[in-house]
Amino acid sequence: MSDNQLANKSQAWSALFSEPMSELVKRYTASVFFDKRLWKADIEGSLAHAEMLAAQGILSAEDHAAIQRGMAQIREEIEAGRFEWKLDLEDVHLNIEARLTELVGLAGKRLHTGRSRNDQVATDVRLWLRSEIDEIAVLLNALQLALVDVAEKNAETILPGFTHLQVAQPVAFGHHLLAYVEMFARDAERMADVRRRVNRLPLGAAALAGTSYPLDRERVARTLGMEAVCQNSLDAVSDRDFAIEFSAAAALVMVHVSRLSEELILWMSQSFGFIDLADRFCTGSSIMPQKKNPDVPELARGKSGRVVGHLMGLITLMKGQPLAYNKDNQEDKEPLFDTVDTLKDTLRIFAEMAAGITVKPEAMERAAMRGYATATDLADYLVKKGLPFRDAHEVVAHAVKTAITQARDLSALSLEELQAFDARIEADVFEVLSLRGSLNARNILGGTAPDQVRAQVVRHRARLA
Amino acid sequence: MSDNQLANKSQAWSALFSEPMSELVKRYTASVFFDKRLWKADIEGSLAHAEMLAAQGILSAEDHAAIQRGMAQIREEIEAGRFEWKLDLEDVHLNIEARLTELVGLAGKRLHTGRSRNDQVATDVRLWLRSEIDEIAVLLNALQLALVDVAEKNAETILPGFTHLQVAQPVAFGHHLLAYVEMFARDAERMADVRRRVNRLPLGAAALAGTSYPLDRERVARTLGMEAVCQNSLDAVSDRDFAIEFSAAAALVMVHVSRLSEELILWMSQSFGFIDLADRFCTGSSIMPQKKNPDVPELARGKSGRVVGHLMGLITLMKGQPLAYNKDNQEDKEPLFDTVDTLKDTLRIFAEMAAGITVKPEAMERAAMRGYATATDLADYLVKKGLPFRDAHEVVAHAVKTAITQARDLSALSLEELQAFDARIEADVFEVLSLRGSLNARNILGGTAPDQVRAQVVRHRARLA
Amino acid sequence: MSDNQLANKSQAWSALFSEPMSELVKRYTASVFFDKRLWKADIEGSLAHAEMLAAQGILSAEDHAAIQRGMAQIREEIEAGRFEWKLDLEDVHLNIEARLTELVGLAGKRLHTGRSRNDQVATDVRLWLRSEIDEIAVLLNALQLALVDVAEKNAETILPGFTHLQVAQPVAFGHHLLAYVEMFARDAERMADVRRRVNRLPLGAAALAGTSYPLDRERVARTLGMEAVCQNSLDAVSDRDFAIEFSAAAALVMVHVSRLSEELILWMSQSFGFIDLADRFCTGSSIMPQKKNPDVPELARGKSGRVVGHLMGLITLMKGQPLAYNKDNQEDKEPLFDTVDTLKDTLRIFAEMAAGITVKPEAMERAAMRGYATATDLADYLVKKGLPFRDAHEVVAHAVKTAITQARDLSALSLEELQAFDARIEADVFEVLSLRGSLNARNILGGTAPDQVRAQVVRHRARLA
Amino acid sequence: MSDNQLANKSQAWSALFSEPMSELVKRYTASVFFDKRLWKADIEGSLAHAEMLAAQGILSAEDHAAIQRGMAQIREEIEAGRFEWKLDLEDVHLNIEARLTELVGLAGKRLHTGRSRNDQVATDVRLWLRSEIDEIAVLLNALQLALVDVAEKNAETILPGFTHLQVAQPVAFGHHLLAYVEMFARDAERMADVRRRVNRLPLGAAALAGTSYPLDRERVARTLGMEAVCQNSLDAVSDRDFAIEFSAAAALVMVHVSRLSEELILWMSQSFGFIDLADRFCTGSSIMPQKKNPDVPELARGKSGRVVGHLMGLITLMKGQPLAYNKDNQEDKEPLFDTVDTLKDTLRIFAEMAAGITVKPEAMERAAMRGYATATDLADYLVKKGLPFRDAHEVVAHAVKTAITQARDLSALSLEELQAFDARIEADVFEVLSLRGSLNARNILGGTAPDQVRAQVVRHRARLA
Repeated sequence: MSDNQLANKSQAWSALFSEPMSELVKRYTASVFFDKRLWKADIEGSLAHAEMLAAQGILSAEDHAAIQRGMAQIREEIEAGRFEWKLDLEDVHLNIEARLTELVGLAGKRLHTGRSRNDQVATDVRLWLRSEIDEIAVLLNALQLALVDVAEKNAETILPGFTHLQVAQPVAFGHHLLAYVEMFARDAERMADVRRRVNRLPLGAAALAGTSYPLDRERVARTLGMEAVCQNSLDAVSDRDFAIEFSAAAALVMVHVSRLSEELILWMSQSFGFIDLADRFCTGSSIMPQKKNPDVPELARGKSGRVVGHLMGLITLMKGQPLAYNKDNQEDKEPLFDTVDTLKDTLRIFAEMAAGITVKPEAMERAAMRGYATATDLADYLVKKGLPFRDAHEVVAHAVKTAITQARDLSALSLEELQAFDARIEADVFEVLSLRGSLNARNILGGTAPDQVRAQVVRHRARLA
Repeated sequence: MSDNQLANKSQAWSALFSEPMSELVKRYTASVFFDKRLWKADIEGSLAHAEMLAAQGILSAEDHAAIQRGMAQIREEIEAGRFEWKLDLEDVHLNIEARLTELVGLAGKRLHTGRSRNDQVATDVRLWLRSEIDEIAVLLNALQLALVDVAEKNAETILPGFTHLQVAQPVAFGHHLLAYVEMFARDAERMADVRRRVNRLPLGAAALAGTSYPLDRERVARTLGMEAVCQNSLDAVSDRDFAIEFSAAAALVMVHVSRLSEELILWMSQSFGFIDLADRFCTGSSIMPQKKNPDVPELARGKSGRVVGHLMGLITLMKGQPLAYNKDNQEDKEPLFDTVDTLKDTLRIFAEMAAGITVKPEAMERAAMRGYATATDLADYLVKKGLPFRDAHEVVAHAVKTAITQARDLSALSLEELQAFDARIEADVFEVLSLRGSLNARNILGGTAPDQVRAQVVRHRARLA
Repeated sequence: MSDNQLANKSQAWSALFSEPMSELVKRYTASVFFDKRLWKADIEGSLAHAEMLAAQGILSAEDHAAIQRGMAQIREEIEAGRFEWKLDLEDVHLNIEARLTELVGLAGKRLHTGRSRNDQVATDVRLWLRSEIDEIAVLLNALQLALVDVAEKNAETILPGFTHLQVAQPVAFGHHLLAYVEMFARDAERMADVRRRVNRLPLGAAALAGTSYPLDRERVARTLGMEAVCQNSLDAVSDRDFAIEFSAAAALVMVHVSRLSEELILWMSQSFGFIDLADRFCTGSSIMPQKKNPDVPELARGKSGRVVGHLMGLITLMKGQPLAYNKDNQEDKEPLFDTVDTLKDTLRIFAEMAAGITVKPEAMERAAMRGYATATDLADYLVKKGLPFRDAHEVVAHAVKTAITQARDLSALSLEELQAFDARIEADVFEVLSLRGSLNARNILGGTAPDQVRAQVVRHRARLA
Repeated sequence: MSDNQLANKSQAWSALFSEPMSELVKRYTASVFFDKRLWKADIEGSLAHAEMLAAQGILSAEDHAAIQRGMAQIREEIEAGRFEWKLDLEDVHLNIEARLTELVGLAGKRLHTGRSRNDQVATDVRLWLRSEIDEIAVLLNALQLALVDVAEKNAETILPGFTHLQVAQPVAFGHHLLAYVEMFARDAERMADVRRRVNRLPLGAAALAGTSYPLDRERVARTLGMEAVCQNSLDAVSDRDFAIEFSAAAALVMVHVSRLSEELILWMSQSFGFIDLADRFCTGSSIMPQKKNPDVPELARGKSGRVVGHLMGLITLMKGQPLAYNKDNQEDKEPLFDTVDTLKDTLRIFAEMAAGITVKPEAMERAAMRGYATATDLADYLVKKGLPFRDAHEVVAHAVKTAITQARDLSALSLEELQAFDARIEADVFEVLSLRGSLNARNILGGTAPDQVRAQVVRHRARLA
């Protein structure tokens, strides 16, 4: 019994097993290749557990000191790339524990008192995800600020606003970008909400039923900066809600990214020609020498599929699972890891890319002129002269029809020509028919008037500071 | 120009169109068949808009009164089932507006001043969803209370706790049910978070750019009880985040339902035999006379697929959409409606069904005896006698192996037999080896000891009151 | 025992049940509201079963005749809208059987000999889906032919071919449309493959284990035109592969529709201006009088989400289900029905819409000129003069860079200017630099040269005849 | 111009670019880390292309020989692990081409004549997937054979057949396993169908429009063993249907695996106790010494989520993409690779695991006795005595009700007791009421009688040979 049970994993799980795990199974079920990135959280969680065990008198001061010493060395070994990860030891948790026992003997074996891999894994993943959410929050902030900067410079830049991808009404390009700031702001709200539910402590649930050791779970929660203790041990070890909720929030971020990407790609196409992306975000073609392709937004649009796929994978994983812990749950990690990586890379690159956008205001304005973008303004003008809106709408439809036939803009029609559609039209109509007049007129909260855009820029700056 | 443009929709959209919409297209694009359930929100939103228009002096007091009068009549007609819904008028909004104009003439046409169908639809859906979320919150509460009631009665009932569906440790049946209360409590939290993001006002965004009328959007928000005004008009009309976020939260509810269903089905199978569901929740078989099938949990488990599918559908819908409004968005409604219906029906039926569960404590206890559920307690016992946990684990594995060979429980071994595995074992071991001893021992926060279960029942009752 | 058990469903399932199904449960579990569309398949399947029972001597000739007579009347009643569907009778199958027993007495009760609702439902759904697949095949054909027609007219129309939405090389507009014909042709192949797996007979599996009656399953399969008999009774009643496989094939159709829709929307935007859709496929705006929106392709793009969602729902439904039949499976129908409806409506409307596309060749050609679409042709020209391709690529990149700076097309550079980039360039270069020259040059199988397009048109016409 | 453009990728894409790609972008867009597994297909495709170029006189015999020599060396270097993969060269294709040019100079540059990375990548993925499908077919075969072996040994073993997880009728355990053989046989059919659509040649489509070089695409197709040539160049480079279709087929395999896993887990639970899995497929617990957990089926059930997620990711990826190639498509590879790996590992391990199942026939038979599994047989018995089935059903329900009250099986009732329910019952009823009698009676095609099971075993063996 003196030998280390962990070191014997390659022989058999316990005395109960008559043969070792097959090599094929060992590879199939091992997670150490991907879960070793949890090492920092694992050590942090173990130290908090040990500290509490000592405080409760379950662990001697000597054992506690030995564990601290051993963990410090393991931390060093991992950071230096000298730690030897073993497939036979399945996962990050057993690898660290086995090494600890090698280093400090019995004290290492005592660390596991009152806990199980089930609550240990759940705690580690939560600690890790909490710190990733914090990084994501910083990146979401940076992206918003980058967009606010471009928006501020373009508070007066006229862009054709589209509905149905048809020219609708002129909007400020800055206003358009601020729509994405709203989206990413909501994403940050959602991440903050997820964080609260991530930041709860499963440790103390043990395998599934709690433990007979007099643990002080509130103390561990405080040490780890967690907001609450999971109140039911069965739920604590089987709950993967937080992973699904995080993935759903991440999928929404990527949906927003896919929408922004779609627009960047459209705007950079020669037919729109509204913007240019910096060369360092583009690639050429191996066959077509003239190409400069917006690879980054295209790939980001594609990567939305990846993150959405992970969300669906995680939901499928949990559907119909009985309590408490089942091995299925090991499959939560890779999608979660890949989601975090994809999100962070994408947000980082988009903040950089936004700063490198070259705006082509003439092309934007020219495009706005092509689509009778001020027709609604003419209808509003008629309403103010007393026509019910629905009737004004019809008058203007007639005017537009005529203008299309003659390939002229509404503002290019003479006063007489306009009055033929409705006698109420007077000389002041031409102010209304200009793009800039239209833009300035929408001067209400949330509207596209440059003053509103600038007010929003101030609000966002204050919010993001 | 005096005729009603809306009434002419079957001829052509406006003077700009040379032919009417094809019948096939009319059916393909119409939404009135499913969106008429928004009628109450539509009227509520219109009245708040009219009230503000009047307060701002944009609408005369007479027009305002006429609109109020007309809307009151329409409300009555719809409630009485006398309202005639017309496919030609596409959706609920045009149907109501056309009827209003019929009833009160020009005033009806003036109601649309400063708004567009885009912001109107967005507002209606949010008002409707807000009230549905409130109903769902009530239903989630009721289900939790129903589970808490059964849990309280079963604070001492011994159930084999499973991991990997193998007997692990004894748990209280009440403790097990409270795990689901935790899940549904988190669901309620998430719904409350979604509600905050639903409860923001798009109205005033008009088609996409805001409006030139001096609307008071904050006033409308207050009238409608909304927490904030959408700060960007483009975002306001194109945002469907709230629908996706709600669907994700709903999918998680259904994942929890699917897990509880799976367990109810297992427990009611003859092999487990742990519970019985009331006859009124079961069906028989047209061919097998002895059958009593747990149809409700099975169907509920299946319905998780439906809700998950809607989530996936909504995400696919929004992926890669450019701003601002696109007709694609009309497809947000049916999945949302069906998700709400499924969720409400399922929660309602589960609360009723929970109350009708017959618990079979002897079968549960017998099953717990079959799986050496107190083996961990023996290991803990040895640790308290000074053995490192990893070594105690191995000692017990040997004992279990022997017991299996002889088809006896650990508690059926004699003291001498037990001491052969480790000399530290003494007579007090038998208390540790009993199911109830094991249960009582896990008396820490979140653990399965009956005292803990009762404490949680008190906490939940207070929380849900 | 003389009363009809079916009519008593509102009282209790069988003598085994002590109380009737709750009203809530009845609604929750009933399917008659949506599955009544299976009535034709249900009658067809029952008649084939009865015919075989009679042939095997299990059913008397009189009973057989009575069943035929009763079914004829039921068919009439349903077609005339006079059949009374009852919620209490749960589903289409029990509704028809109960009515049959009302009409022909004991013979009606004997129809169910040797079968169960499990194999009956599975058979009905397969018969129904088979006939829907046949309709979808016809619609896929019609859409392909409509596209081939437009392609033929546009075998010479020059369109800028895009990669990364950047102008790449000129292609024929007809060639571009034929890419979609390839996609829909593959969809038709897949539907044919699914059909083979749908067209197998579950009847005879009874509840799950087969039956002790000497049924002739091969005979029923022949009567119903099915290709094979399901070879395992457990599989026969629990298999929903065909529903998932069909949904996956349908999702691919809708992915193709979403891609075509995206392009139609882009092409119809003012910035591209490549095509116009007929007014009858478009809508206007309630606020912007100048709008003509491509509602049909937008909605179709959105509807891809719906079908994808159903696929995901069905997979979630089946994941982890133990054999044999579980009530979860009832949830297969609505997604399947809605998928079929969406697919058929969309294909039908797209075939009509394709025929109504107005092509604007000048705008297309102008756009092709804007993006140095013949740069690759210049590189190929240099290769033919002896330069390795990678080097030729670099020469042309330099030429394009210069041309961009001067805002000129490559073909607008003089021979001297071109020779400055590589001395090998001679006067024959200008043929290569023309759009039409480029188009004609790609005259290999699958290439965009008008001759190839015309050859493909011929091939498709032959294939689709 | 003499320097290698490929080697300069770290400086700038081409003369057109004013700055190199940012390091962040380089990492974000690079694929060489995961796509290098395509190396074998890449070389195979290049050699076929070169062979055709030479045959067409586009490439000199010397260049052709040089390319063959260079490729042979590269193959050797990769196999020996000596090939240096460079991130700067983005992907497997450029890495190999750059090395080739290093080794054989200009000939290497000439290899790319008439092709583009777009058609090259599409070809490589198809070649690679075709060979993986062939391996998957072999593995599906092996798994079927393993199940057939166990089925044959258990043609007479009585298992309670379940519907709704309630005991329904006795079935042979072998019959139950053969249901899965049917599923995996359908999966193999689907894989064969996908293979036909994978096995078509995109090469010759060049970037998107075909090429002006007189390529012989049919020859390349023949060389590569492909069944057809993609008939439209735009479709050829943008089509990812085959990836989605393969993923859908793979998702179905995993749905089947999840169902089998669910059953293995249930059967191995102590409450069922029907089977045991070999120790080498199980794990223990770090805390509970008595545990032996069915990790492999649990993990496999969980891995169904992963594969389903990839399917959804791929569909999301392609939704709404305009033609022709977009960078989004690079995201098709990782999900495809991971799907293939998961599928192959899972099938391999399941074939091994199936062979190691220990069947416990007494437990199975005992469970079948518990649920009145022969009640239907009694009803059928009464029908044969002249009662309509629906009435016989009700008689038996009464008998079962009485038997339940007395906790006795139907076969334990005396003849007199039985006759009290219906006078037609005679002494021969007891044969009908035995499990084995019931099993033997279902002796029709697809039924569970041992003779049928043995016949199916013969059929499957012949089919799989």
